[in-house]
Amino acid sequence: MALKSVRMAIGIITLDNPKKLNALSHALVSSLIHALNQFAERDVRVVILRAQPGVKVWSAGHDVGELPEGRRDPLGWDDPLRNLVRSIESHPTPVIAMIEGTVWGGAVELVLACDIIIAVPESTFAVTPARLGVPYNVSGMMTFMSAASLRIVKELAFTAAPVDAVRAERVGMINHVVAVDALEAFTLAMAATIADNAPLSIRVMKEQLRVLAGAKPVSPRGFEKVQGLRRVVYDSYDYAEGIRAFKEKRRPAFLGR
Amino acid sequence: MALKSVRMAIGIITLDNPKKLNALSHALVSSLIHALNQFAERDVRVVILRAQPGVKVWSAGHDVGELPEGRRDPLGWDDPLRNLVRSIESHPTPVIAMIEGTVWGGAVELVLACDIIIAVPESTFAVTPARLGVPYNVSGMMTFMSAASLRIVKELAFTAAPVDAVRAERVGMINHVVAVDALEAFTLAMAATIADNAPLSIRVMKEQLRVLAGAKPVSPRGFEKVQGLRRVVYDSYDYAEGIRAFKEKRRPAFLGR
Amino acid sequence: MALKSVRMAIGIITLDNPKKLNALSHALVSSLIHALNQFAERDVRVVILRAQPGVKVWSAGHDVGELPEGRRDPLGWDDPLRNLVRSIESHPTPVIAMIEGTVWGGAVELVLACDIIIAVPESTFAVTPARLGVPYNVSGMMTFMSAASLRIVKELAFTAAPVDAVRAERVGMINHVVAVDALEAFTLAMAATIADNAPLSIRVMKEQLRVLAGAKPVSPRGFEKVQGLRRVVYDSYDYAEGIRAFKEKRRPAFLGR
Amino acid sequence: MALKSVRMAIGIITLDNPKKLNALSHALVSSLIHALNQFAERDVRVVILRAQPGVKVWSAGHDVGELPEGRRDPLGWDDPLRNLVRSIESHPTPVIAMIEGTVWGGAVELVLACDIIIAVPESTFAVTPARLGVPYNVSGMMTFMSAASLRIVKELAFTAAPVDAVRAERVGMINHVVAVDALEAFTLAMAATIADNAPLSIRVMKEQLRVLAGAKPVSPRGFEKVQGLRRVVYDSYDYAEGIRAFKEKRRPAFLGR
Amino acid sequence: MALKSVRMAIGIITLDNPKKLNALSHALVSSLIHALNQFAERDVRVVILRAQPGVKVWSAGHDVGELPEGRRDPLGWDDPLRNLVRSIESHPTPVIAMIEGTVWGGAVELVLACDIIIAVPESTFAVTPARLGVPYNVSGMMTFMSAASLRIVKELAFTAAPVDAVRAERVGMINHVVAVDALEAFTLAMAATIADNAPLSIRVMKEQLRVLAGAKPVSPRGFEKVQGLRRVVYDSYDYAEGIRAFKEKRRPAFLGR
Amino acid sequence: MALKSVRMAIGIITLDNPKKLNALSHALVSSLIHALNQFAERDVRVVILRAQPGVKVWSAGHDVGELPEGRRDPLGWDDPLRNLVRSIESHPTPVIAMIEGTVWGGAVELVLACDIIIAVPESTFAVTPARLGVPYNVSGMMTFMSAASLRIVKELAFTAAPVDAVRAERVGMINHVVAVDALEAFTLAMAATIADNAPLSIRVMKEQLRVLAGAKPVSPRGFEKVQGLRRVVYDSYDYAEGIRAFKEKRRPAFLGR
Ligand code: NI
Ligand code: NI
Ligand code: NI
Repeated sequence: MALKSVRMAIGIITLDNPKKLNALSHALVSSLIHALNQFAERDVRVVILRAQPGVKVWSAGHDVGELPEGRRDPLGWDDPLRNLVRSIESHPTPVIAMIEGTVWGGAVELVLACDIIIAVPESTFAVTPARLGVPYNVSGMMTFMSAASLRIVKELAFTAAPVDAVRAERVGMINHVVAVDALEAFTLAMAATIADNAPLSIRVMKEQLRVLAGAKPVSPRGFEKVQGLRRVVYDSYDYAEGIRAFKEKRRPAFLGR
Repeated sequence: MALKSVRMAIGIITLDNPKKLNALSHALVSSLIHALNQFAERDVRVVILRAQPGVKVWSAGHDVGELPEGRRDPLGWDDPLRNLVRSIESHPTPVIAMIEGTVWGGAVELVLACDIIIAVPESTFAVTPARLGVPYNVSGMMTFMSAASLRIVKELAFTAAPVDAVRAERVGMINHVVAVDALEAFTLAMAATIADNAPLSIRVMKEQLRVLAGAKPVSPRGFEKVQGLRRVVYDSYDYAEGIRAFKEKRRPAFLGR
Repeated sequence: MALKSVRMAIGIITLDNPKKLNALSHALVSSLIHALNQFAERDVRVVILRAQPGVKVWSAGHDVGELPEGRRDPLGWDDPLRNLVRSIESHPTPVIAMIEGTVWGGAVELVLACDIIIAVPESTFAVTPARLGVPYNVSGMMTFMSAASLRIVKELAFTAAPVDAVRAERVGMINHVVAVDALEAFTLAMAATIADNAPLSIRVMKEQLRVLAGAKPVSPRGFEKVQGLRRVVYDSYDYAEGIRAFKEKRRPAFLGR
Repeated sequence: MALKSVRMAIGIITLDNPKKLNALSHALVSSLIHALNQFAERDVRVVILRAQPGVKVWSAGHDVGELPEGRRDPLGWDDPLRNLVRSIESHPTPVIAMIEGTVWGGAVELVLACDIIIAVPESTFAVTPARLGVPYNVSGMMTFMSAASLRIVKELAFTAAPVDAVRAERVGMINHVVAVDALEAFTLAMAATIADNAPLSIRVMKEQLRVLAGAKPVSPRGFEKVQGLRRVVYDSYDYAEGIRAFKEKRRPAFLGR
Repeated sequence: MALKSVRMAIGIITLDNPKKLNALSHALVSSLIHALNQFAERDVRVVILRAQPGVKVWSAGHDVGELPEGRRDPLGWDDPLRNLVRSIESHPTPVIAMIEGTVWGGAVELVLACDIIIAVPESTFAVTPARLGVPYNVSGMMTFMSAASLRIVKELAFTAAPVDAVRAERVGMINHVVAVDALEAFTLAMAATIADNAPLSIRVMKEQLRVLAGAKPVSPRGFEKVQGLRRVVYDSYDYAEGIRAFKEKRRPAFLGR
Repeated sequence: MALKSVRMAIGIITLDNPKKLNALSHALVSSLIHALNQFAERDVRVVILRAQPGVKVWSAGHDVGELPEGRRDPLGWDDPLRNLVRSIESHPTPVIAMIEGTVWGGAVELVLACDIIIAVPESTFAVTPARLGVPYNVSGMMTFMSAASLRIVKELAFTAAPVDAVRAERVGMINHVVAVDALEAFTLAMAATIADNAPLSIRVMKEQLRVLAGAKPVSPRGFEKVQGLRRVVYDSYDYAEGIRAFKEKRRPAFLGR
């Protein structure tokens, strides 16, 4: 479901499940993690994560069909996305996301978990849990907080409206906006620069930044309160309604309970 | 002192004490908190906080006449602004600040404590404790740190000079700059989008972001040292001079002691 | 090696070792710290840190000749740069960096440790440890994290490529870009504004922001793991190769071990 | 289910559901919290929590009949015991546990959440989640950690064997061991001493100790990993077996999965 | 007010103001800090802090005459006791408290801030803020938490009753109980053992333990709430009554407001 | 070097290198970690760590011959003892230390890292870094802090004098003191009790306690300062002298530099 190639110490992973809009199913995520693990064992010094050229949808996010229908935390420790985000964060080399097309829901977190992001002007990013009625988890929210200012995260999360790459770059969510016919060359050039530098020095800096960005300790009491609130959400009518409406391709009617 | 209305699950609070330049007196703040509490009990899904159309001053900030003249912490736990900031932060729905006119001192913190900010190009924001000689408090500084990069916060705080909405948007302090005749429609449209989404999902995300943004733990020793420094300030000649000069509408002459 | 003057409560420190490209040798750093300490004892209310007008290189960063050749932590607690960064952070008044020319390696951290940064459009900033093979330290990474978004820090650190002042301002790393013939007047005007404000109030706010920005607590286990990784780096072939190549003015060939 | 009386500023709550062995059912816990709230509104300066004189079982702990049979967190934010522990911790006056009889499971946490504990030599305390197969929660473990050294907590938790009051006093879990016929007089005398002291000063010290004892911040990643492990437990065969065996009054046979 | 001598790398400081019961006045504390500083500059490897042989009162604690009468924090950053506690904690060598006589109030914190404590069986320790109506401060509460289990600290603080050395040793507050005629020899022997060990290794371990024991980070919001509660106390009728009653040598009558 | 057996779900590891006094060499530690890993893969529900019956020395601690002679951190992330301590802490089942004979230096940390400790009255524990001049590391100090009160840790660390099992039990360092001929039966009985309980429930509680006990976050600045102090120690004359004296079996003469 994901293609893999290596050229000049640059590893490239290509999402390749266009029929399912590259939704982050258990199967696709396993194949991505597998590719990362293989790169980690070889002399790959930087990874590019991309979709096929010309796609309309870079990834549609969670595979909603795999979410529980209620009374169970849909985004626990073993959720595929959580495993993938942790794999990228602890990968020993930089991972560059190269974006063409639209990015939805959990796939936005996937992109933001990458170290560097380069996108075409037409690409968009939409943070959709509020449209689905899902209780996002705390480490997911941390990925968003590391990726943009609190104010922008709130706007994206509360409106669930797409933001385009140009605004995303302006608010610091992504590194560069590059025209579609220059995207690949630009990305490869940056990857080559990184591959020429000292890999061990880069690995330590990535790890230090990971540790420091994660240094947002929460009291057990605060955390358990949040878990309690999240349980209220996945036990709610609205959660079931959101999942149902998505599957029935209709607009949900939320009642706030 | 504050007007209140609800339309289509959107609650609107309007500062309405223009003679006092909407200064954050105990009375005005009580009326704002009261309005928020009432919205929380009804099916209001998003709140807009605004002033009357056409005002020159959105809010002048602290009511300096209510500050102690020295030897007492002027910004303790029960200061009206602190209560209001906590009310907004723990309000179960998003609060959108809609800004026309200038914003001064503590009112800047009030605006920045809102979740989303939309302002007209002519509006300005001035962080003025250094002009008054006041020792700002730690949770107030945290509101600023959550609102802009450290570097910009320092410039605003150390110069006390106004920044206009255009630069504020560029540095990530506010979400959107909108021409004055489009302001209301733009704000209502965003509010309507939010009101259509799942309220419980939004509430959890707001709470998670609040907890994470507050995850800046300080050692008791560090905190008590800061309190000791703050006491030096409110016991100082300069503090009394700043308050006096403000009341006498003259420029203060600070001696650094 | 550093010149020092005071005018109207504004202290000015000028890097003045152009032959060595203002490299941060023990000698230059001592003289900078000495100047700061003297300002702290007098009624100086704001400090400007600058180089001589017209320099090509504002500072070349660490004096590589002073780094150990391996098997020793090159960036421990007593490294000159660490002492200087701590001096600036705990200096009781704001420090403004006024930048003309290029800034390299550790000197970028020095600039970013200043409270406010004003630069000419032609100036550039390059974060170079990955080009030298050096394991940067944790508090150094914190200076970068306080200065720009995580995403930009990663791009700068992993590519080691220079970023110019215009982009630096856009991503929030610096406060203002000013044409070279207006630089000094602009900087002095901002300094004068600060000098007119209440010094004790400013000192408390600077200290509060320092404490809050440093509130990134790390578990001893996490920290010791990072130290272990850093030791792998300074024990590595690549570290010695990076230092050697720099001294021999050739491009290093890194092996990843 | 709980009796309540006040004498000379000393409030006394008596567990009074002997048929159910004072198990911490929703009903009993509600009545305890209700009593505490009423005391908080009056001039009660210290609370004594006790059972009826002569009971064999002070409290049997969780009402196992109220626990879910699997696939649901049995000890979430709204569990009766968690609500009661938080009520005691945030109660404005000291709460003294006066213990005669055996204490089991969650009731041990209840006792340890009290501020001061006085017990007769024959009383015992057994920490039983490992005998039932239940995944205890993090804030519950914190109550144990605040109550005894890590080493003793581990022995109690891993063996699930009762410890008697004499050893409990020796290891610092309880304050005093007093013969049964002196228990009430001893406890009332200590309560009277407390009631003579300054209530506001005591309230602040209790709150400070609560804040400091809770200052065990955990990273969201660490917490979510623990939640993941806990889910493995309540989804397990052993969890269901433990609950079943308890209800069938037989010894469970645990398989480790 | 304090005598000072050095013998064989052992520095001895003797409290010597028996008329004032060695109360911790500004004058006595200054002389203690001065003595510590002088020892730090010489080759003193361990310090003993003691009173004159045969005293009834080792120290009476705060000099109540120096406390403010209300509306001011009586225990701020610059309180003499706080300065002394920080001096002992950051002193580069171990400090042994050698106790004969009774210890009251703030003097208990002074003793507990020492590294090792040796006392005669007849000595007692009473934690008295609740008897005086004083709002103890957070770092003071931390000294108590580092010195005994939470449960014992609560009993001492809430009852304000003296605890004797034998129980203090049993609950881990002090290291050894030694008969009065063996006290000096026992203490000197332990000091000599320490003085023979490697001073730099000891200094690092003392500093590590200081850092770890202080690793109880508190959120600014939590801290400011505690400060708010403390202000309620020192603004109260009871605070003034407690100070007055102490000076008039009568029993205070607290009203709880 | 270590023997391994399993009986009734109880795994037993026996230190078996009496000629080297069971010193914690790389070889012995590897064999211990290997045994733990094998137990983790099988249905072993509790581990006992012991020496051969009748030994005079349970373990002599670090193999001093393996420590660097200076200018290198002797106790970094990859030190054998650190690896072993982490293995025990993250082992999925309880580990019981069964102690007969004397325990020295790093072996005391090894014992204290076990979950439960049972010892004969004649056994002793000596914390010896100050006698050797070694800078202990922060996570090592945390093991001690989790094992006894701060006051006792300081006495043991600063005097380096042995403490016997009876006092160790009284101060909460160990769980039980048992006569030598009852030691094995007592330990096996406790192990059997644990093995009958629910393994998953125990695993979660052990992990929760590990996370909470490790929740002593330190600021990067504080940590790097400690590392700087530690470097002063291992660069010192005294460090080299301590190692030399140990090898030459003579008493070291420390100079404090
Ligand atoms: Ni106010
Ligand atoms: Ni250097
Ligand atoms: Ni329950």
